[in-house]
Amino acid sequence: MASSTTASPSLNLAIKNSCVRENSDLFLRGRNLSLKSSFIRSSSLRLNRIGSLRIQSKSRIISANSAQVMEQSSIRAPTIVDVDLGNRSYPIYIGSGLLEQPDLLQRHVHGKRVLVVTNTTVAPLYLDKVVSALTHGNPSISVESVILPDGEKYKNMDTLMKVFDKAIGSRFDRRSTFVALGGGVIGDMCGYAAASFLRGVNFIQIPTTVMAQVDSSVGGKTGINHTLGKNLIGAFYQPQCVLVDTDTLHTLPERELASGFAEVIKYGLIRDAEFFEWQEKHMDSLLARDPSALAYAIKRSCENKAEVVSLDEKEGGVRATLNLGHTFGHAIETGFGYGQWLHGEAVAAGTVMAVDMSYRLGWIDESIVKRTYDILQKAKLPITPPDVMTVEMFISFMAVDKKVADGLLRLILLKGPIGNCVFTGDYDRKALDETLRAFCKS
Amino acid sequence: MASSTTASPSLNLAIKNSCVRENSDLFLRGRNLSLKSSFIRSSSLRLNRIGSLRIQSKSRIISANSAQVMEQSSIRAPTIVDVDLGNRSYPIYIGSGLLEQPDLLQRHVHGKRVLVVTNTTVAPLYLDKVVSALTHGNPSISVESVILPDGEKYKNMDTLMKVFDKAIGSRFDRRSTFVALGGGVIGDMCGYAAASFLRGVNFIQIPTTVMAQVDSSVGGKTGINHTLGKNLIGAFYQPQCVLVDTDTLHTLPERELASGFAEVIKYGLIRDAEFFEWQEKHMDSLLARDPSALAYAIKRSCENKAEVVSLDEKEGGVRATLNLGHTFGHAIETGFGYGQWLHGEAVAAGTVMAVDMSYRLGWIDESIVKRTYDILQKAKLPITPPDVMTVEMFISFMAVDKKVADGLLRLILLKGPIGNCVFTGDYDRKALDETLRAFCKS
Repeated sequence: MASSTTASPSLNLAIKNSCVRENSDLFLRGRNLSLKSSFIRSSSLRLNRIGSLRIQSKSRIISANSAQVMEQSSIRAPTIVDVDLGNRSYPIYIGSGLLEQPDLLQRHVHGKRVLVVTNTTVAPLYLDKVVSALTHGNPSISVESVILPDGEKYKNMDTLMKVFDKAIGSRFDRRSTFVALGGGVIGDMCGYAAASFLRGVNFIQIPTTVMAQVDSSVGGKTGINHTLGKNLIGAFYQPQCVLVDTDTLHTLPERELASGFAEVIKYGLIRDAEFFEWQEKHMDSLLARDPSALAYAIKRSCENKAEVVSLDEKEGGVRATLNLGHTFGHAIETGFGYGQWLHGEAVAAGTVMAVDMSYRLGWIDESIVKRTYDILQKAKLPITPPDVMTVEMFISFMAVDKKVADGLLRLILLKGPIGNCVFTGDYDRKALDETLRAFCKS
Repeated sequence: MASSTTASPSLNLAIKNSCVRENSDLFLRGRNLSLKSSFIRSSSLRLNRIGSLRIQSKSRIISANSAQVMEQSSIRAPTIVDVDLGNRSYPIYIGSGLLEQPDLLQRHVHGKRVLVVTNTTVAPLYLDKVVSALTHGNPSISVESVILPDGEKYKNMDTLMKVFDKAIGSRFDRRSTFVALGGGVIGDMCGYAAASFLRGVNFIQIPTTVMAQVDSSVGGKTGINHTLGKNLIGAFYQPQCVLVDTDTLHTLPERELASGFAEVIKYGLIRDAEFFEWQEKHMDSLLARDPSALAYAIKRSCENKAEVVSLDEKEGGVRATLNLGHTFGHAIETGFGYGQWLHGEAVAAGTVMAVDMSYRLGWIDESIVKRTYDILQKAKLPITPPDVMTVEMFISFMAVDKKVADGLLRLILLKGPIGNCVFTGDYDRKALDETLRAFCKS
């Protein structure tokens, strides 16, 4: 309709309604057009009801054979999940071979200097590839890196200072971009460094573990641990984009793989019954690293997370529900020592405890307890806390949880059919005590 | 007008247009009404064109003899300067005896627990008074404090960790309030701690130095130093309110007093010629701590700062102009060692250098150079950098300034009549070199 009222060149392509964002990026890439973000902002993209995409520009002529574009692009087209946060919105790109598509990353780089933050495990595997993706066809970009020791036990202020030392020593300025290449620990630390360096610089996430791809890289929670508790120091700071190249999972150790599935299972339990049922059927494929099963699980997890984060960025309410099992889990990580168990392992045991407590409160059927046990066991995740954990330790470490408000410990508990939960401090304290006693030897 | 269309009880008071905010707070306090913030939110406050304030409530009856209220309140009525930042807006209360008005502080406390962050110099003078103001008539509030060593050289990560250690060790939660009681160093550190603790808790500033009252407590810049540069790690984080009790200046050492005037003079030079002329006439009164002169200088400085911050919270452009003399000044502080000179002393010498460079560029008259020298000397501030500073040191330390973008050093320079400045990287580099050589022995 609008085309008849303007002289601007335009391109119409019939696409699937659900793929608007994917395809708007896709066409540009597929056409090999080198479009600056300022051009994209100055263009108008509109979707009408029957799903046709219009790209208009006052300054350029765009034309293409749509069928040809679709064909060229289908090979490695990323799935895109949008995190809708107003002027802090950003895309999550999900797919195979994305690190071989330089423009995906480069369109989100600000300035000419990039600092890649990674660790001793990931650097030998993917650092060169990322540097190449950042600089390919763009020689004005200079990339430096800082390689941190690997592991949750290094997620502290001392390690964070190494990032600042590097950035300041190398005279990075406000127009720099920090790139997190690694798992959740790297993403959290690099994000907090980006939030704090010169009071905030541009930030990109390239998660390389299931845990980071389905959970920690999305939503802007960044931070470090304190000896007394997890993630107690940090910031809400959103990235410019998250790039999930599923090929990076080929090198992921089995324990790490399973750890990530704890968060995937969480999404099913708290808000997506259909996804939970899919997982019950496809856990074997996930453990066998079937690419399409992994891609689907990551996409669906990111969609769940993006929706929750869009509703409640700063965790005033519904976002807290993403922490099912985490309050118990954080106590395990703190009490058992960071790095003894992986985060997802602690969350798995914590989920069992939260589900047990929900059942004791009479809020869920026994069948849900059983299905939770079954799927976690199938995913090769622990279903009880480590023996060293005592009732006293749980009580003590849970008291510093961020969800405590005015002294009241609020928990995420299941209530009703699978896919439903509550975030509440209004529960019978007896049920919590019984759960703790049931899972601890002393 | 609206009163005839509603049955709600209402109160009309004739007030001066410029004092709306002051008086709306004032009347409530003067009437000794204990109004919860939820009530205030649910009430409607309207100002019509002739300056009459209407307070309406659906749930309560408010009536008062306005003359009586005005009289009761006039003794210690705070001046209020609003910092307009949308949903992050907040008031700056300025006046004598404000720490004896508990409701001013208490209305901005969230939760039941308060952590006062102060230093070894200020704690013996004002900590008891602040604790009393926070708890008077409100026994449910519990206040703890952390007392840091005093001085710019302690504005680092080690000292910041003491705040986190205290907050976490004492199990403060998200519904806590951090209060900064002290000068700029305390405000910056407490603010960054509040921004980072559990990813952000409520924050109140009680500045006790001229420097903090006219500049650093307003506008949400928080952070710490790195050995290689000032304020390189931090966050933009706005307080709930700033409370400036001018009585706290009675105990301020003379050097600290003068240091603060460097920022006062800055506002005149960059954007307020009339204020600069006022300062030229009243510098003696300011140095003699004349209460009304101090109150006026603080108010006018805060108005200038609030206006700039409202236009540009994150320092994308105009806010940078508040850093006149600071790029040279930061180099002095870093090169000379934190704490050798006070911040304002370094800024004063830096201002002379920026003005000198502006003159060399042909951007200002010689008379402005002279007036700048004169007023800084009158304020007993240094007008040359310390002898240890070399050209090389300036160049090296200025290169890590936050205003560097893509390698280009941008500076704030005067241009045109007094009260006008530019923030630019577009200047003849020769002028900078000449200025550095003129002020350094080697």
